[in-house]
Amino acid sequence: MKPPRFALRLCSLFLLAATLLRAAAPATVEQWGVFELELKGPSEGNPFTEVRVGAVFTDGATTVEVPGFYDGEGVYKIRFSPGAIGDWRYETKSNRWDLTGKLGKFTATAPGKGNHGPVRVNNTFHFAYADGTPYKQIGTTIYNWTDTPEAVQEETLRTLAAAPFNKARMLVTPQPTPYKETFAPPRWPFVGTPPTSWDFTRFNPDYFRHLEKRVAQLGELGVEADLILFNPYGHFGFETMDAAADERYVRYVVARLGAYRHVWWSLANEYDFLRTKTDEDWDRIGTLIQRCDPHQRLRSIHNGRLIFDHGKPWVTHVSMQNGAAVNESGRAEMYRGVWRKPVVFDEVCYEGDSKYRWGNLTGPEMVHRFWCGTVAGTYVGHGDYFATEKEDTWTSFGGKMTGTSAPRLAFLRKILEDGPRQGIDPIDKWWDTQTGGQPALYYLTYFGYEKPTEWTFKLYKNGVNDGQRYGIDIIDTWDMTITPVAGEFVAKKLDNYFFGDASGRKVRLPGKPGIAIRVRRLGADGVPVKTEQPTD
Amino acid sequence: MKPPRFALRLCSLFLLAATLLRAAAPATVEQWGVFELELKGPSEGNPFTEVRVGAVFTDGATTVEVPGFYDGEGVYKIRFSPGAIGDWRYETKSNRWDLTGKLGKFTATAPGKGNHGPVRVNNTFHFAYADGTPYKQIGTTIYNWTDTPEAVQEETLRTLAAAPFNKARMLVTPQPTPYKETFAPPRWPFVGTPPTSWDFTRFNPDYFRHLEKRVAQLGELGVEADLILFNPYGHFGFETMDAAADERYVRYVVARLGAYRHVWWSLANEYDFLRTKTDEDWDRIGTLIQRCDPHQRLRSIHNGRLIFDHGKPWVTHVSMQNGAAVNESGRAEMYRGVWRKPVVFDEVCYEGDSKYRWGNLTGPEMVHRFWCGTVAGTYVGHGDYFATEKEDTWTSFGGKMTGTSAPRLAFLRKILEDGPRQGIDPIDKWWDTQTGGQPALYYLTYFGYEKPTEWTFKLYKNGVNDGQRYGIDIIDTWDMTITPVAGEFVAKKLDNYFFGDASGRKVRLPGKPGIAIRVRRLGADGVPVKTEQPTD
Repeated sequence: MKPPRFALRLCSLFLLAATLLRAAAPATVEQWGVFELELKGPSEGNPFTEVRVGAVFTDGATTVEVPGFYDGEGVYKIRFSPGAIGDWRYETKSNRWDLTGKLGKFTATAPGKGNHGPVRVNNTFHFAYADGTPYKQIGTTIYNWTDTPEAVQEETLRTLAAAPFNKARMLVTPQPTPYKETFAPPRWPFVGTPPTSWDFTRFNPDYFRHLEKRVAQLGELGVEADLILFNPYGHFGFETMDAAADERYVRYVVARLGAYRHVWWSLANEYDFLRTKTDEDWDRIGTLIQRCDPHQRLRSIHNGRLIFDHGKPWVTHVSMQNGAAVNESGRAEMYRGVWRKPVVFDEVCYEGDSKYRWGNLTGPEMVHRFWCGTVAGTYVGHGDYFATEKEDTWTSFGGKMTGTSAPRLAFLRKILEDGPRQGIDPIDKWWDTQTGGQPALYYLTYFGYEKPTEWTFKLYKNGVNDGQRYGIDIIDTWDMTITPVAGEFVAKKLDNYFFGDASGRKVRLPGKPGIAIRVRRLGADGVPVKTEQPTD
Repeated sequence: MKPPRFALRLCSLFLLAATLLRAAAPATVEQWGVFELELKGPSEGNPFTEVRVGAVFTDGATTVEVPGFYDGEGVYKIRFSPGAIGDWRYETKSNRWDLTGKLGKFTATAPGKGNHGPVRVNNTFHFAYADGTPYKQIGTTIYNWTDTPEAVQEETLRTLAAAPFNKARMLVTPQPTPYKETFAPPRWPFVGTPPTSWDFTRFNPDYFRHLEKRVAQLGELGVEADLILFNPYGHFGFETMDAAADERYVRYVVARLGAYRHVWWSLANEYDFLRTKTDEDWDRIGTLIQRCDPHQRLRSIHNGRLIFDHGKPWVTHVSMQNGAAVNESGRAEMYRGVWRKPVVFDEVCYEGDSKYRWGNLTGPEMVHRFWCGTVAGTYVGHGDYFATEKEDTWTSFGGKMTGTSAPRLAFLRKILEDGPRQGIDPIDKWWDTQTGGQPALYYLTYFGYEKPTEWTFKLYKNGVNDGQRYGIDIIDTWDMTITPVAGEFVAKKLDNYFFGDASGRKVRLPGKPGIAIRVRRLGADGVPVKTEQPTD
């Protein structure tokens, strides 16, 4: 027998009233901000494994199922980042009566200053924020900064505030190092007895609340957080969890942190050094994240010596370790061509004074690698590894930087942000490996360690026509100067491949390493043509 | 009601007698040779589409289903290459009574001189013949040599007999070029009206008989035939067949030619320039070949500008076009690492005097590219494109070569064949990109265009121990000299990464481009240690 409709409505009203009494949530949130719904629920038994909770959000056009998580002491949270401005409604889903069927609504308002939304793949090889603003990745590495004394963490934030980086790679779980001898981490991700005896069915909400506070602070600085879920460093036991524990862990981290628009997922650092997992495990975990992350944050996995198959559908971009691929300008493009995805060289060795060769690049070599990657249409990551006795380096633990590359990377970032919004692509692939740009609009040619004293104006034919006028700047990548060359260059066909300058003009160059030239097409007003073009 | 067993036997005997009357086949064939069974059958209707014929071969240990093909005028053939010495029995299978159920047997005898069996992938990145002999690929390109005047074809064979090449890439279907204006091909692969009106349901056996005669002659010269099934050159219509016609064509070629042990399948040349097919088409065709080729010949596909996904399971090795990847020694390894398969740079631009830049490498540059590929643990292909008025070049049509690289490639081949049988692998990947070899046994360091005047003895640590003795040769890759350095070098640990010579010895070098050094570990007898190691 069906109950009368009136009774159903009464019942719904009653449930809604109950919801309003026991749930806390804001009435408005910015587009791409974090809407957090807090619910009171059961605390008996093991809520981490026994209680499922989530919510379905809809604005009428888009419907998203969002997983929640248990935050301890009977508190459940569901975090959702609305992708569109307007009114959103939601209804919770749970296997418990006091968490399910709760209705609510909120309004997503226009994004505030500095909120461009999440970074997405754009134009095949590049990135852009959701609002269309190009994102030119200049990354750094601070693996374990959230697991240091509070003063170091605060110092890390101050360092980043003054640094050029718009992405930081960091570990979700701790790594052991000599530094730890004098500092025992006050928090661990699981309940148990440090450092190796854990109940993998019970997370430590305090650990994650701290982590997400620090992650949120990166967001406030405009730094994307590339969160490394698994790492091979040390044997705390997080690397030997079984598949069920891996899945619980990944789902918990995704539910807690995935609503932050600046979060990226890195399945592992040096995945092939984590010898307790197989390629099949990584594919399973990557596919899981693709399925369980309603916000579809960027996903990749970072290698040691064995290149991962970045052709897997869940890989959104390549996160590469291979320093040799960017110490010469002709190499980085090769990975781009293989996968037709953005390539980020997240580790290319670090600037530093380590006894290990992966940690003793000079500042100029670090900068050189960024430029090689740039003209090949890829992106590069920074590290600073000036090793104290305890290996308490920027790249391991944050704090302050010692190297000399950072200001030069700020200079590069500015050039990229002034450059074509669709990104730098090879101009004459497999022939001129020193030049990237956009045809007939913008060219960056980087000479690396060569010390040319002149450059004859010459452009590859694509898009170039007789009579087009170009302006040239000489860029000193180390001294951070941009020197315009007086006058204009006028394109004139040379042969089947190239255009030269109508009067054969050459550009005098300073005859030192680290020089680049920027060639930009000029409009009728003599000003560089805007390089904005439609992106995909 | 079952017939009595006696009747069945009588019936079998009758069928066998009928078989013996109408089938022709040899009683013995070499292991890895071609056993050909010829059968008479129906010629009415369209035997190409209406008659299926094949045979099951077994030696008791291995059972192989082999497809046959119609050779015109009521003749059907089934070709099988036995992989083991011994007695083989077979039974034909057909959808026609007069071709099915025929029984027979033959004996596979020991392989004759020069018969090492088919080339297979070996040791992940390398090749070996089935008898274990290493195969060090030194390829060339003679796209359309079987479609020229007979005198040119004969000249091609004479040229190859004196050349260093052990592989030739060639097209199965014709390409149009200016050369053709003065020479109309006498044969076409399909029945129809040349050059573009074809009945794709009827093959021209005469075309394929001629093709396989020439392919067999390559085999006699020890040249593997890399047969290109589809090409983008010209619009004869072979590039716009539908999927059913593609499948018939591929099955026909595989059935006719697959039993030749030196045949490789190349799905296409410059597949991405063949704009009438998609990646999905190529995957379908590659999977088809993998399924329908009982001999499992090597399979790949060759790109123009877009890199193919060589991770596909049917791709046995990478067939790459990218000249830039081998004009600097640090690049070629990158593709190896991506796919963990052998990489053959089948097109790296051609030696020649073409007005096109892909056809005007100097001889030294051609040789340089082979050496760059070699020390990176990959293989390279040659082309000779000295263009006459009609573009009647070696690489287009065979005949004779003009360039200067071939003798130097013979020199390189000899060095490789004297080298480690398991192949050349990078020794210190991503750090020393000039050196390949096998740790503590054999090292080749190639200096390219650098002109060093000395080299300090220094080996990467893997496998090296204090006191090991090494001998060094200086190789002039252009002048084709190998000059031993007097005396021995004794390994002594330098630091965490390297060993040097105990007495700090250096090697004097001639200060010119194109120099390599070979370092070989010496046994107690002062002779280089044999570099044979078990292969997979």
